[in-house]
Amino acid sequence: MGKVSIAVLASGRGSNFKSILSEIHAGRCNAIVNVLITNNPDAPAIEIATQNNVPVEILEPKNFSSREDFDDKIKETLDKYDVELVVLAGYMLILKGKKLLDSYQIINIHPALLPSFPGVDAQTQAFDHGAKISGVTVHFVDAGLDSGPIIYQEAIDISNCKTAEETAEKILKIEHLAYAKVIDLFSKGKYVLEGRRVKFLKNE
Amino acid sequence: MGKVSIAVLASGRGSNFKSILSEIHAGRCNAIVNVLITNNPDAPAIEIATQNNVPVEILEPKNFSSREDFDDKIKETLDKYDVELVVLAGYMLILKGKKLLDSYQIINIHPALLPSFPGVDAQTQAFDHGAKISGVTVHFVDAGLDSGPIIYQEAIDISNCKTAEETAEKILKIEHLAYAKVIDLFSKGKYVLEGRRVKFLKNE
Repeated sequence: MGKVSIAVLASGRGSNFKSILSEIHAGRCNAIVNVLITNNPDAPAIEIATQNNVPVEILEPKNFSSREDFDDKIKETLDKYDVELVVLAGYMLILKGKKLLDSYQIINIHPALLPSFPGVDAQTQAFDHGAKISGVTVHFVDAGLDSGPIIYQEAIDISNCKTAEETAEKILKIEHLAYAKVIDLFSKGKYVLEGRRVKFLKNE
Repeated sequence: MGKVSIAVLASGRGSNFKSILSEIHAGRCNAIVNVLITNNPDAPAIEIATQNNVPVEILEPKNFSSREDFDDKIKETLDKYDVELVVLAGYMLILKGKKLLDSYQIINIHPALLPSFPGVDAQTQAFDHGAKISGVTVHFVDAGLDSGPIIYQEAIDISNCKTAEETAEKILKIEHLAYAKVIDLFSKGKYVLEGRRVKFLKNE
């Protein structure tokens, strides 16, 4: 099967970006990163891209008249780099451009078992709520907040975690491998949506 | 350690009641069922109680002027049977009596990983939402809907379930053992509440 061409959108340290590259290099994720797009000229993710010969595009919202215009520019950039799948990796802006959302399959990873604990600080939410199990969710991105159809989930026991920080660290460990695993799925076959149920069809 | 004296409240078939008794008999749940209380004179749970020499009290809301009065009567019944822990097992009425809620530690099992999918038909909710992971939650009962502090959770992969019914069956299997396991915890030690985090202190 052919590699899936992805764009990574990141705003920060790029720890998920790094782990995706590492899984690609290890042969466990059949993808190629065509471009890193970031809204933050100081994002450490940029250095990771440079070290891995991944082209970088820095697009700052302040240079655009609206967030819709900004997202249109992202869409044009994705067109230019011939991207099949858009991977949000610590991208801190909510996507508002209809053209962008309609044109690309966009995925995100959320550090909780959605629909539990959407939004920011999901790990702290889970800890404070006294959840004994949490995990990660990879989902399609729609116009809502962490509300798109669920592609993959993985659970983890957080009952012995003593702080929200420890909870976050424990979840981060599964987050890294889970994301690469899902990207790899996109290289293996098509998927169908039944209602909001996502089902991958293998060997197609 | 001494056995924990429980009351089971059930409205229906009593499948959880049955599995609790079975785990008690197998020596894996250090409890004794002092009484079955049911609001339904036709509940199959009654026969299970009779077969196992568990006293039965049938209390029907229609014989009481209010749900508070009805719950007061449940509280008196619990007092009479010297109960330490109240176990809801398919009990279909929401507890409304403040005296009852304040006097007893009451637990419930919910067929989802709360706070995801509270309320009725949790398994169908999970299936329709396209969740890949669901599970069971044992929690303390408060005046809200499935909102009390979480005691125990167990996750299960439902990604291959083809129907809501199959999802429910898969969850039911872990439900039975999970509930008995949690009841057994109450015989082994005290617990503390830190915010809404439940922590059992062993060997006390």
